[in-house]
Amino acid sequence: MAGLQQVLVAGGWRDAVAPAGEFRARDPSSGEAIGGAFPVSGHGEVEAAVAAATAVAEAFSAADPARIAAFLDGYADGIEAGAEALVALAHAETGLPASPRLRDVELPRTTGQLRQAARAVRDWSWAHPVVDTATGLRATFGPLGKPVVVFGPNNFPFAFNAIAGSDFASAIAARNPVIAKVHPLHPGTSQALGRIAHAALLAAGLPAGAIQLLYHVEPSATPLLVGNAAIGGVGFTGSRAGGLALKALADAAGVPFYAEMSSINPVFLLDGALAERGAALAQEFFASCTMGSGQFCTNPGVLVVPRSEAGDAFVAAAAARFDAAPAQALFSDDGRRHLGDALDALLAAGAERVAGAADPDRSGWWVQPSLLSVDGERFLADPQRLQGEAFGPASLVVRSDDAAQTQAIARAFEGNLTATLYRAGDGRDDAQAAALIPLLRPRVGRLIVDRMPTGVAVSPAQNHGGPYPATSHPGFTSVGMPGAIRRFAALHSYDNVPDALLPDVLRDRNPGGVWRLVDGQWRTDDVGAGT
Amino acid sequence: MAGLQQVLVAGGWRDAVAPAGEFRARDPSSGEAIGGAFPVSGHGEVEAAVAAATAVAEAFSAADPARIAAFLDGYADGIEAGAEALVALAHAETGLPASPRLRDVELPRTTGQLRQAARAVRDWSWAHPVVDTATGLRATFGPLGKPVVVFGPNNFPFAFNAIAGSDFASAIAARNPVIAKVHPLHPGTSQALGRIAHAALLAAGLPAGAIQLLYHVEPSATPLLVGNAAIGGVGFTGSRAGGLALKALADAAGVPFYAEMSSINPVFLLDGALAERGAALAQEFFASCTMGSGQFCTNPGVLVVPRSEAGDAFVAAAAARFDAAPAQALFSDDGRRHLGDALDALLAAGAERVAGAADPDRSGWWVQPSLLSVDGERFLADPQRLQGEAFGPASLVVRSDDAAQTQAIARAFEGNLTATLYRAGDGRDDAQAAALIPLLRPRVGRLIVDRMPTGVAVSPAQNHGGPYPATSHPGFTSVGMPGAIRRFAALHSYDNVPDALLPDVLRDRNPGGVWRLVDGQWRTDDVGAGT
Repeated sequence: MAGLQQVLVAGGWRDAVAPAGEFRARDPSSGEAIGGAFPVSGHGEVEAAVAAATAVAEAFSAADPARIAAFLDGYADGIEAGAEALVALAHAETGLPASPRLRDVELPRTTGQLRQAARAVRDWSWAHPVVDTATGLRATFGPLGKPVVVFGPNNFPFAFNAIAGSDFASAIAARNPVIAKVHPLHPGTSQALGRIAHAALLAAGLPAGAIQLLYHVEPSATPLLVGNAAIGGVGFTGSRAGGLALKALADAAGVPFYAEMSSINPVFLLDGALAERGAALAQEFFASCTMGSGQFCTNPGVLVVPRSEAGDAFVAAAAARFDAAPAQALFSDDGRRHLGDALDALLAAGAERVAGAADPDRSGWWVQPSLLSVDGERFLADPQRLQGEAFGPASLVVRSDDAAQTQAIARAFEGNLTATLYRAGDGRDDAQAAALIPLLRPRVGRLIVDRMPTGVAVSPAQNHGGPYPATSHPGFTSVGMPGAIRRFAALHSYDNVPDALLPDVLRDRNPGGVWRLVDGQWRTDDVGAGT
Repeated sequence: MAGLQQVLVAGGWRDAVAPAGEFRARDPSSGEAIGGAFPVSGHGEVEAAVAAATAVAEAFSAADPARIAAFLDGYADGIEAGAEALVALAHAETGLPASPRLRDVELPRTTGQLRQAARAVRDWSWAHPVVDTATGLRATFGPLGKPVVVFGPNNFPFAFNAIAGSDFASAIAARNPVIAKVHPLHPGTSQALGRIAHAALLAAGLPAGAIQLLYHVEPSATPLLVGNAAIGGVGFTGSRAGGLALKALADAAGVPFYAEMSSINPVFLLDGALAERGAALAQEFFASCTMGSGQFCTNPGVLVVPRSEAGDAFVAAAAARFDAAPAQALFSDDGRRHLGDALDALLAAGAERVAGAADPDRSGWWVQPSLLSVDGERFLADPQRLQGEAFGPASLVVRSDDAAQTQAIARAFEGNLTATLYRAGDGRDDAQAAALIPLLRPRVGRLIVDRMPTGVAVSPAQNHGGPYPATSHPGFTSVGMPGAIRRFAALHSYDNVPDALLPDVLRDRNPGGVWRLVDGQWRTDDVGAGT
């Protein structure tokens, strides 16, 4: 097909070979197609990408870490240099506000994340080197020796983009080639990022085949990317249905699969907090729920609110804000339909709508923010149906009769990314909080106090993860260096290997002052330097 | 069924409820049934075990770590106190030598491992606490909040026993209840260990339901133990066929599954090493291959030997030892049949037998050690069939024409636990070793120089693991504290949580001097103590 945008395969930009179709981005505010036509890659293209990435895996594993870090830093610099064009493209393709969201929040987060990955490469923190002089064993994390495939989501055109986000930076930091399968809702943004990445890769003197970019893949070709023993690992951020389908492919082939899939992020508003600052909390909640049209994995999708005077006042204040809110555009017509279906399912399970008008009847993917409510007793009678995710500006309030019911509700949640407790500043809620924490702790990756879940700092102490089905593994985070890098690493032990044949990071001499666990003590000096 | 041995379910020893069958151990040297009759657990018993373990998970998660450590130490003490009886039972059920193997090697390894787990509990090294003062985030590994199921293998009645080995100690150290599904070839040994464990648990003041012991499970009930969202994780050591069948169940339910399945542990004997000390290497190899009747996951199952004068001499010396070796008893008749089938498959794929007579025709599970050989070219023509595991005292020698072919052979290996290089002491092989290491590194968990793979030290720098299909995840080891513990842990992040609501290990004060990563520096002092 003539005039299709180029893919990045086998070391350079080239026309799609035998595409299985084509597609264009759409403006969420109008529903109209925008930008150029992009190819849907077929079997041959996917096979070529896997083959090209596999061919450079050995060389990329052996690449000088200084070059890897230089690439990550150079890529961040390039993104900043091209920020205006990137923001304009991403705004057009996603409808997200250019400012502050894209320019002032997400883009700096993306470049910061790339630079944190570069720092982790330079300081070796991701490698967790261990020396045991008594046995002659030494260990470090190292590359997988095979390509990593990353599937990006619709909701972060920069920070989770398969060609620029945390999975990408993590896989590259561990010296694995990446095949980026970006989200087809923002192909132009992804291509622009890919051009910057490719240039930075060449500038760093790294193998050009270390990055491949595909926009969309024919469904029957997906197993080549995921259920394929040639692949070292897969990172996925997206829907539960999509994640589970890919996970089944990866599992059957023995490919480690890291999915961040779904979460409703329960928020417990304790009575003291509501009595103390209910109106402020209603505003804080409304802002968190509707930011980015509610299209965050950490959106506060369910609130547990006591059936009390302060609880009633909070719900009324929140409902007033939802009722007064303007319509918001979602990323796609599919997203709008899924949200409607999810809300209908909650209503069918016994929830009631307390705020939110019918969606506006106009072109584009506009929806009205929604607030639903359900009794605690009803929730407990059917917790599975009443914790279905409604991805968008919508939340369900569960009204709890008392502290015992609140605990029962806490126990009814399946795996989530986060849970949040709001408590009074004077400590009157702390006993209830202390009783809830042990119930929520095994059910979530991040336990939050007095903050909405939607802010996800890129920190070494972050866990953007959680028990299944929020993610596919409770031990890993997809955000935060160096932890996120370790998903795409293999544990490498060396037994009785002479110093000269060891990787630098495990040799006796430690000129870079790397933190290493030597005979049970973390230290930065040479092995044998004394205590 | 009257007179069946008791199971440990729901906090105490009790008669099997509605067993699905019964079985007895057999003496490998005679094939005769020995000891009492043990129950095959059916659906009801398995459900009861899962329910009982689930019921204590919350309390066990909250248990005082000092009690957990006291249990692990007390259990090790109890095993030592009962050593003679345990060794006699294990010898009778497995045919392994009472001394040195069981009494002097495996039992001390088992108690040492339990005590290392206790140390990791006391020093919190498994929890990897991280503090980030800039964001208010803190993170640590914590319990899964659900029971862990452990499947033990046939080949280590103590050190990998589901009720006493590394998986057991790891899961308990992370404060998870354990359901031990021990191997039915050594039920008496497992029961004796279980009695010591149960007594130690009660002595430590921990919930009695934290350990359940089943000997054998009706196949149709296995999904309740593995493909069940109530289970937090599964540890398995055994055959590839068994491991993959259980993995499919666990994967479908989103249960993290750690299998150590199969490995042929390639050993590369470089020409200089053979010229220097070929006769000694032949003895070292023979001893490693036939120790424990070759029934080790780290058995040297394939040797790569140059087609040279020194290589020919090595093969002749090794063949002479194999030919002169007495017959050895395997654990079971199934094992004998599987070994015969595996050798037949290698012969059918083009290997030739260079040593080893026909198996003796007598009662019991006796086999003659076998040495096979194949051309490098032939190996490369069909590497999949020629790297089938033959579990027992048997190895395949691959004769390589030159260094280039040796490299091609190295690239043809699938995931293994180990790879070994033997090189000359004078450095003449080091260039070839340095060229092979990058090829072997991504294919194995532990890279060894000048040592046979069969010794697996319990060390923090150990990796008893490796890429699929050797195991189910390249990032984890099943041996070595604290790493092995982390398999059964969840990452717990705390966001803006006040000090009083944090777990002790993340609070500002650090009275125990725990190593924590604070703002990028490993330290043992309080947060805010200055630099």
